[in-house]
Order: sequence, then structure tokens, then C-alpha cells
Amino acid sequence: MEMNIALLPGDGIGPEVIAQAVKVVKAVGQKFGHQITFKEGLVGACAIDATGDPYPDATHEICAASDAVLFGAIGDPKYDNDPKAKVRPEQGLLRMRQKLGLFANVRPTFTFPSLVHKSPLKLERVDGVDFVFFRELTGGVYFGEPRGRNEQGTKAFDTNVYSKEEIVRLARMGFEAAQKRRKLLTCVDKANVMATSRLWRETVQELAAEYPDVKVEYEFVDAVAMRLIQWPKAYDVLITENLFGDILTDEASVISGSMGLMPSASLGSKVKLFEPIHGSYPQAAGKDIANPLATVLSAAMMFEYAFDMKEEAQAISDVVNLSLAEGVVTEDIAEGGKAYKTSEVGDWLAAKIL
Amino acid sequence: MEMNIALLPGDGIGPEVIAQAVKVVKAVGQKFGHQITFKEGLVGACAIDATGDPYPDATHEICAASDAVLFGAIGDPKYDNDPKAKVRPEQGLLRMRQKLGLFANVRPTFTFPSLVHKSPLKLERVDGVDFVFFRELTGGVYFGEPRGRNEQGTKAFDTNVYSKEEIVRLARMGFEAAQKRRKLLTCVDKANVMATSRLWRETVQELAAEYPDVKVEYEFVDAVAMRLIQWPKAYDVLITENLFGDILTDEASVISGSMGLMPSASLGSKVKLFEPIHGSYPQAAGKDIANPLATVLSAAMMFEYAFDMKEEAQAISDVVNLSLAEGVVTEDIAEGGKAYKTSEVGDWLAAKIL
Ligand SMILES: CC(C)[C@H](C(=O)O)[C@@H](O)C(=O)O
Ligand SMILES: CC(C)[C@H](C(=O)O)[C@@H](O)C(=O)O
Repeated sequence: MEMNIALLPGDGIGPEVIAQAVKVVKAVGQKFGHQITFKEGLVGACAIDATGDPYPDATHEICAASDAVLFGAIGDPKYDNDPKAKVRPEQGLLRMRQKLGLFANVRPTFTFPSLVHKSPLKLERVDGVDFVFFRELTGGVYFGEPRGRNEQGTKAFDTNVYSKEEIVRLARMGFEAAQKRRKLLTCVDKANVMATSRLWRETVQELAAEYPDVKVEYEFVDAVAMRLIQWPKAYDVLITENLFGDILTDEASVISGSMGLMPSASLGSKVKLFEPIHGSYPQAAGKDIANPLATVLSAAMMFEYAFDMKEEAQAISDVVNLSLAEGVVTEDIAEGGKAYKTSEVGDWLAAKIL
Repeated sequence: MEMNIALLPGDGIGPEVIAQAVKVVKAVGQKFGHQITFKEGLVGACAIDATGDPYPDATHEICAASDAVLFGAIGDPKYDNDPKAKVRPEQGLLRMRQKLGLFANVRPTFTFPSLVHKSPLKLERVDGVDFVFFRELTGGVYFGEPRGRNEQGTKAFDTNVYSKEEIVRLARMGFEAAQKRRKLLTCVDKANVMATSRLWRETVQELAAEYPDVKVEYEFVDAVAMRLIQWPKAYDVLITENLFGDILTDEASVISGSMGLMPSASLGSKVKLFEPIHGSYPQAAGKDIANPLATVLSAAMMFEYAFDMKEEAQAISDVVNLSLAEGVVTEDIAEGGKAYKTSEVGDWLAAKIL
């Protein structure tokens, strides 16, 4: 099969981890006989530096013409503490999500037996955790208008807005995923305070009738923020709006102890996007020490979700598990064993696939 | 001294835990020679049931005429899953906060050596944790207008809004607290996405010049949601807006392992309010099993923050520590030892004070 993949390495460690994923994807292509073409685009701080725009049209064209996007990370501290900066790298990410119609961010949380001891949580709480968030990604306070300041600049405002259709399409993905899993769906909202949340809850309540095999629970976002730590095994599929999803999926990402390994997918349109959940980690950039496994596993998700190629995806998961078992890993998870370089891990994985 | 205290037991276990705090406050009054008058008001679901209003005027008058309010908890599941309900108990809470001008919610998180093993986190991560959140409580998306639906009911919206003054007065409390503590202030926002957050960050940056002894850090809310679990000892004082504070303080409340013991204060005007951070816990209501210690410690905060009576506050903390040491505690923390009833714990504490 022919596959056109857009590569957006982004900032910080992005280019290094994407480079390893590319090695692995090429190896999979070679082994399974796929013809894979890569086209690279700029996004984030590096795109601002080069073009003034964090998501240049040229990049969008590459993405829109591709079958799938492999994305690294964006963000540079030089933009973080300047609240008056006119252009910020994150705007590129947000515009990309919106222009590509990626309305659902899928974030699985699961444990690797060899890493679960690194969790900040006690073993009995986290061992065997297996849930997945469906975060709405193109609505809510991220895009709502009006937003800004009053004339004097002494007052600021944001608007959170959701339409029923936006909720329905995201919720359906959640219901369908729950049907294939443990059949429990948790709708996370703040319906005791927010009008948008009440529309979420009402809409999910209506939809629930169509999925009688799925048990639906409604929980407030503050309660979920607690229970994710107290008893994360209670969850199966969680659906939520953009901002709550931002906070909760990051919270969730640290509980398994394998933050550097967690992949994610953004779905919703023909073109799907895959990225590690970790950030651009500027302190490690250029040192060849970043853990590439989350990006490599994001490539596995790409084979499965974008190309429906389960075998290819499995081949990648298998070599990742092998690298963990044999200790061919970067310093963040090396634990006294030899620490491999980012590039060495990528080479090793690609060689094992072939 | 004469002290007029308004009692708002509220729903669920509220009345039971408030009753124990009253015993303790009376004992303190007797011992230290204060003349304490209590007046009780309805709030929450019980107020709706009785009057149709979750925060009746009569209750507000009692509060407004008092020196301090001791509050239990509100919320009843019968109101939770009806997104179309016209009146909800929480509205009472929100109206109370706003009408009393309680713009700052102060939530300390600390550990009790005898309970820290109950934390979901590993001991080395949580032992000795000691931070305090200052959550803005009368602004943001909780009160912003417009909010509601479009005419067809197919679209919902909320408005998050903050003025510079709202931020300044909350931030000053945080800076002042930091000066008396470890001199680290973390401003939690989402300045990479939200206009309100950018005003927060900008305003705090300006204020920082007035507090040169305080180190200020700026962190995104999603990053804090992670680091609160990964390394909670990194924090000292955190300031944040209403909604982020709602989520993060609840997340924080479970890390110490002593959720049932965590008190809170709401400040901002002449009348100050004190309440346990736990909820109305309807499953336990009426069973005389709820842990009253968080409410009793909230009464200790009342003596300190509302009446500047450090000795009285210390007397309460001391008997609470004694009850923990001697195992005079409710079933949630009894651990194989005898479980005392809520009322027995209250009686014991009051007797020990005298
Ligand atoms: C960088 C930022 C705008 C972004 C978000 O808030 O969505 C990030 O936190 C994420 O979760 O992908
Ligand atoms: C009951 C609810 C409206 C309230 C809030 O969101 O403020 C509660 O969660 C709290 O934190 O006191």
C-alpha cells in the first residue's frame, strides 16, 4: 500500500524522537511491503522563527494532502513567560487541530509491567490500570468567541461554547470504544456550575439509550481529579470537553509510571494525527537522550487507526516490549542499567523489526 | 470575648460533623472564657426542600450578622443527574460565597504522620508535604455572563471573566502567605490558551516586584495537575482562578491520605467561612460514622483566621492530634482498632479540651 505521511517534528526534543519513529516506520514499510513517503513541515516555535507563523500554510498543505501526520512536540520557554507575545507556538497546534478537523484526542493510559514500579502511586492502586480518555479537541474555551480584553485592558474574558453536534460526535466515539472494552463510560463535566456541562450531560443521557450495553456514569471534573489518583482502575472510557481533558489527561499521564511511553491519536477527519503525550522538554533537546518510545508507539497507533493495519501496529508494540525487556532504553528508564542514546534505541528497534 | 457564629450544617453528613465542631467550640469558649452564640441557618438541598431556595434570605441575614460561619457540606444526589433542574443546592453555595464576598478559598494540604501511609502516593513522595492553595472563589466561569443556551437549546455557552482587581486581591493574599512560609509562589494558569489566564500572569508579574523576597513560578494548569502527583513537595503557596482551583484543590486533597481531616477557610470580607473540604457524603448520612475531624480543624482555623486566637486554635489542633495518637477516631481511619462513632469522637474531643 502507498502511504503518505506528514512529519511535523516541532520543537525541543521533537525532531529527535520523530527521527526514531521514522526509522521504525520505514522498517515496517520494508518488512510489510508498503511504499511510504514522508514530507516534513514546520510547526511551533521553529516555524515562528523561520516564517513568523506557528502553523504556516505550507505545513497545512502537507498535512491536508497526507494520509496521516506524525507529530513531535511544540513549545519553547522563551514564549511562555511573555503574556503579551503576539504569536505563540501553541497557536500553531490549535490552528492545526481546527483546520484538520481533529476533534477527538484519544489518550490511552496503561501500564508496562517493567515500569509500573516507577509510578508515584502505590503498586496496588495502579497495577493493571487500563483506561482511555476521549478529549474533545476543537471546541470549548480553546476556540470560543468573544475572548480578549476590555478597552482599558483591565478585564479579560474567554468564552466556552459547545454545540450538541460537537458533543454527539465525540461521545459516539467514546460509546463505541466502550462497547469494545469493559463497557463503562464516564462522562466528566461540571454540570453543577456550567451551562456547557449541562448540555454535555443532557446530550450524553440522550445518546445512552442507543448503547444499552454500555453503563454510563456522570462525574464532576473535581471528583475525577481525585478518583484518578485514588482508584484509577475504576475507569474504562472517559469522555470530556477540551479544557477538562487537557488537565485530566495530563494528570492521568503520570500515574502509570511510563509517561515517556504514552502515545496519543487525534481523530475526526480523513487525516489523523499521532503524537507522544510528553512535551518538547527543552532541557533535553539536542542531547540525544530523550525517550523515543512514546513517539514510536504513536506510530503504532497510526498503523492501527489511520491504516487499519493491526499486524504492523503489533510488530511495533512487540519490539518496544522487547527493548524494555532487554533494557535497550534511554536514561530516564535505564535504572542503573546501560543508558542508550535516543538514536541507538531507534536503530535497535528498526533493526529488530526487519 | 463575644463571638457570634453562624452554623450552616447543610446536607448529608453536614449536620453530624457540625454538631461535633459545636461541642468543641463550646468547650474552647468555656475554657478560654469566651461567650459564644450560635445561630443556625438552612443551605443546600435541605433549604430547597424547606423553602424552595438553596440560600434563603433568612440564612444570609444570619451569616451577614455573624462574625464567622461554620459550614458543613451541601449536595444531594437527587439533584445531580437532572441537568434541567431549575434550582440546585450548589447555587446556594455559590450565591453565599458571592453575597458574603468570600473571594479567597484557602486550602492547606499537609500530612499527619499517623495517616500518611493511607496516601495513594508512595511515602517518599508525600511524606512532609506542606502547601496551601489560594483559590479565587467569586469570579471566573462560576459567575461570568453571558451563560446559557441559544434559542433552540442546541448550543450552550459560559463566560470566564476576571478583572485585574480580582486577581490582585487574591494574589496579594498568596504573596503574603508565601512571605510567612517558604517564600515560593506558584501562579497556576493556562496562559498559552486563555485570555483570562494571560491577565492573571501579567498581573502577578507586576505584583511580584513588590515582594522581592518571594520567588514566583508560573506553571500551566495541566503541568500542575501532573506535578502535584509526581512531586507535591515542590510546592509552597499556589494561587489560581476559581475553576482550576476547584479541580486542583480536590486533586490535592487526596494526596496526603487524610482527606477526612482537611479543613478550609474562605476569606475576603468581615465575615469569614470555615468548612471541611469533604463533601456531603450522602451514603453515610445519619449513620453517626462520618469523620468530624476536618470540621473540627476548620473550627480551629476559625479561631485563628476570624478571631486571631492562636492559643484556642492550637488547643483544638492538640486534641485532634491526641485523638489520632490514642485512636479515638471514626471507622474510616480506625484501621483495625476500635471505630468510634462521630458523636463519640466529638464528646471525647470536647472533654479533653476542658
Ligand atoms: C500546548 C497546549 C496548547 C496544549 C493544549 O492545551 O491543548 C497541550 O497542553 C496539549 O494538551 O496538547
Ligand atoms: C459544589 C460545587 C459548586 C463547588 C465548586 O465547584 O466550587 C465544590 O466543588 C467546591 O469546591 O466547593
